[in-house]
Amino acid sequence: MTTLSPTPRTTPSRGRDRMLADRARLLALLADGLVAHLGVMTDHHPVVLPTAYAVDAAGPDEGGSLYLHGSVAAGWLPRVLGAEVCVTVTELDGLVAARSGFHHSMNYRSAVVIGQARLVEEGAERRRALDLVVDHMIPGRSATLRPPTRKELVATAVIALPLAEASMKQRDGGPVDDEGDIAAGTWAGVIPLRRVSSGPASGEDSHDNVPHDVRRRAHTFR
Amino acid sequence: MTTLSPTPRTTPSRGRDRMLADRARLLALLADGLVAHLGVMTDHHPVVLPTAYAVDAAGPDEGGSLYLHGSVAAGWLPRVLGAEVCVTVTELDGLVAARSGFHHSMNYRSAVVIGQARLVEEGAERRRALDLVVDHMIPGRSATLRPPTRKELVATAVIALPLAEASMKQRDGGPVDDEGDIAAGTWAGVIPLRRVSSGPASGEDSHDNVPHDVRRRAHTFR
Repeated sequence: MTTLSPTPRTTPSRGRDRMLADRARLLALLADGLVAHLGVMTDHHPVVLPTAYAVDAAGPDEGGSLYLHGSVAAGWLPRVLGAEVCVTVTELDGLVAARSGFHHSMNYRSAVVIGQARLVEEGAERRRALDLVVDHMIPGRSATLRPPTRKELVATAVIALPLAEASMKQRDGGPVDDEGDIAAGTWAGVIPLRRVSSGPASGEDSHDNVPHDVRRRAHTFR
Repeated sequence: MTTLSPTPRTTPSRGRDRMLADRARLLALLADGLVAHLGVMTDHHPVVLPTAYAVDAAGPDEGGSLYLHGSVAAGWLPRVLGAEVCVTVTELDGLVAARSGFHHSMNYRSAVVIGQARLVEEGAERRRALDLVVDHMIPGRSATLRPPTRKELVATAVIALPLAEASMKQRDGGPVDDEGDIAAGTWAGVIPLRRVSSGPASGEDSHDNVPHDVRRRAHTFR
């Protein structure tokens, strides 16, 4: 499925190992990720766009709902509505420095969701989805903000994708090398990677203290 | 182009601001990124796959070459060869907590490259591209490794994409809010994000010291 580790001798077997049926892991990855990559078809080629997203595991779509949003004026919107699209979320966990170029790889978690995009039209679901997108970035924040205006709601399209057809892959651990290369004594290992924050930075016109929700969110990026 | 900040009133103007023609910035983003998202078409839907990549700004394709690699047995390979594909690289730089849900956004840099995929067949270019993929992860590493074996080379497909048709977008800075929301005194700001490493971890069978190249690479993730 993924090409991060294209080792042909190991992909078939390791690929199976990495095919995690575990739904909890899928939801955990989608909770960890912040940017999804949305693939849509045009007449001649696919286009892949980075986008914010949110998940409602108990949403009305089969398997739960993956929500995207965008401007009603966005060029990609007509191409998405009712079409089968692909949404991929990838978290990079490390660089795997093997003893050969061939076995270099990355540690990662990746989810691929394919499904028919549904325009969310019902008011309560739209508002809930938009709150979820904000709360995906900063849990609890939507409840501290004014509600969206009618104008804002009219200007925003909300898309739902079923989480029914989703696959997840994961690579972790150290390098997998040929015995001869190990015997040769070359160094191999991993450069682990994670996302951190230096903490919230208040905006220019912001005189209030940093709210608890924002402080707590920044604290998750240590 | 991107949907990370779908604010309809600001996207047209900010969108133009973010359309950076500057090629140096495109190359800088591609140098910073580690995972690309490759969009390929199937009969019924697009598929978006995370993949390692490398850039040769002086490569033989128009505008320079973006290289991908994979197993010759990979299911996506026949769908890519000779087809128009999309490769998107996104770096997330922060969460933008505005005073309304509507103006919540992310700081990011994103490049979208669309082009016809070329199977790299010439031996020297193939080996150079594979070295570049390793060196993209850890600059200088390929020179410290044994050369690829004939078997490894036969098992690996190398794909090139011209960097001619590429667009880049960027959002940075603080939240952009409605005046009324600013006057209301709600806090707003940014949670800056970056990728860090705790430093290289040697593999189980690795008794040598961590090589200088690996140490230096880990040091770039501070």
